[in-house]
Amino acid sequence: MIPTITAFEQSPDRGQGLARDMPVRWAFEEVGQPYNVRLVSFSAMKERAHRTLQPFGQIPTYEEGDLVLFESGAIVFHIAEHHAGLLPNDENARARAIGWMFSALSTVEPVIVQREASLYLENHKVWHEERLPIVEDRIRSRLDDLAARLGDAEWLDGAFSAGDLLMIQVLRRLDGADILNDYPNLMAYVARGEARPAFKRAFSAQLALVPTDEVLRMSGVR
Amino acid sequence: MIPTITAFEQSPDRGQGLARDMPVRWAFEEVGQPYNVRLVSFSAMKERAHRTLQPFGQIPTYEEGDLVLFESGAIVFHIAEHHAGLLPNDENARARAIGWMFSALSTVEPVIVQREASLYLENHKVWHEERLPIVEDRIRSRLDDLAARLGDAEWLDGAFSAGDLLMIQVLRRLDGADILNDYPNLMAYVARGEARPAFKRAFSAQLALVPTDEVLRMSGVR
Repeated sequence: MIPTITAFEQSPDRGQGLARDMPVRWAFEEVGQPYNVRLVSFSAMKERAHRTLQPFGQIPTYEEGDLVLFESGAIVFHIAEHHAGLLPNDENARARAIGWMFSALSTVEPVIVQREASLYLENHKVWHEERLPIVEDRIRSRLDDLAARLGDAEWLDGAFSAGDLLMIQVLRRLDGADILNDYPNLMAYVARGEARPAFKRAFSAQLALVPTDEVLRMSGVR
Repeated sequence: MIPTITAFEQSPDRGQGLARDMPVRWAFEEVGQPYNVRLVSFSAMKERAHRTLQPFGQIPTYEEGDLVLFESGAIVFHIAEHHAGLLPNDENARARAIGWMFSALSTVEPVIVQREASLYLENHKVWHEERLPIVEDRIRSRLDDLAARLGDAEWLDGAFSAGDLLMIQVLRRLDGADILNDYPNLMAYVARGEARPAFKRAFSAQLALVPTDEVLRMSGVR
């Protein structure tokens, strides 16, 4: 049975692959699992039918027969647990890879999402200019530690894993922030992730949903 | 082999059981697994020896033979995966419980931690009073959705799971915030968690590390 995920009918990032269907698509592509996508409008996301699948009114969801899942981390884990390619076979290495999944989503991502909240929700406040550097210092503190741990390794712990997939996707949210430029090894790490054929297929699939004129406009911006 | 975790030598919460060793202790108690605790000072947490175990210089860590883990979510998952009692046997129910683990740590906790960052790190700013309600509205938005999903159920999805354990622990961070008072079903949910014998044992164990005079002072405050 081919699972079905939900994605934004109109992604706010206009095809930059930063919405949370992206890590799920990437995981599917890494393991070679076909999937269907059902698009959901912003208004439909907040309605009862969608909230039955996703109590917080967000995307993505995952449906496969009787199973309904939400939380991109949990969906990526579910895919990784049922297909080879995203978690090591060695038991200890597998536990550590799962550790990096949690680390990406609960230690690194929150400080990065805070920056987005500042930029998009608080940018009209008189104190926005003063507060943004505080938020960015919290990001740097995390990146200092992450960069020190990664060192010159290719991936966080041995072979590429679901932990790398989620961490790279989280770091991609800093695209355009300049902060990442101060961490050449993290820049290279993200680039290695983006160079993976599975990433490229996932990226193209979400980009294909954006109307052509918007893609052209965005390509001029970026 | 008895695993060893790390905890604060002097917890900033002075025995309220809000530090991240608490969910790990609770998980150990739920499954009946003995554990050792090594206390770490704030300065030692930032040194190389500890960072080898925990790259972000935080607690807890988990050591068992060759295995070193960090991230409280991943440690709770590791315990849940290796002992009965924290994840359902039914495969779909298990996947959903893991979904609630991620939901607790990546959807609900970040907005609650933001409030703590405001209160403890930004309370001297002239804009603190104006910004705090914005932060608290983001918490309410999540709690609205969580309360609607929980309804009058005892736990989030069938029997008590590691998803409930992490969610309840996250909601406990709102203790003293008044916000939770507006959600009677979430208050009762947290109370049900705190009434579990395993929670009480874990709570007592961390409280026992606080010097007696401080416990007495705190008990007057609370």
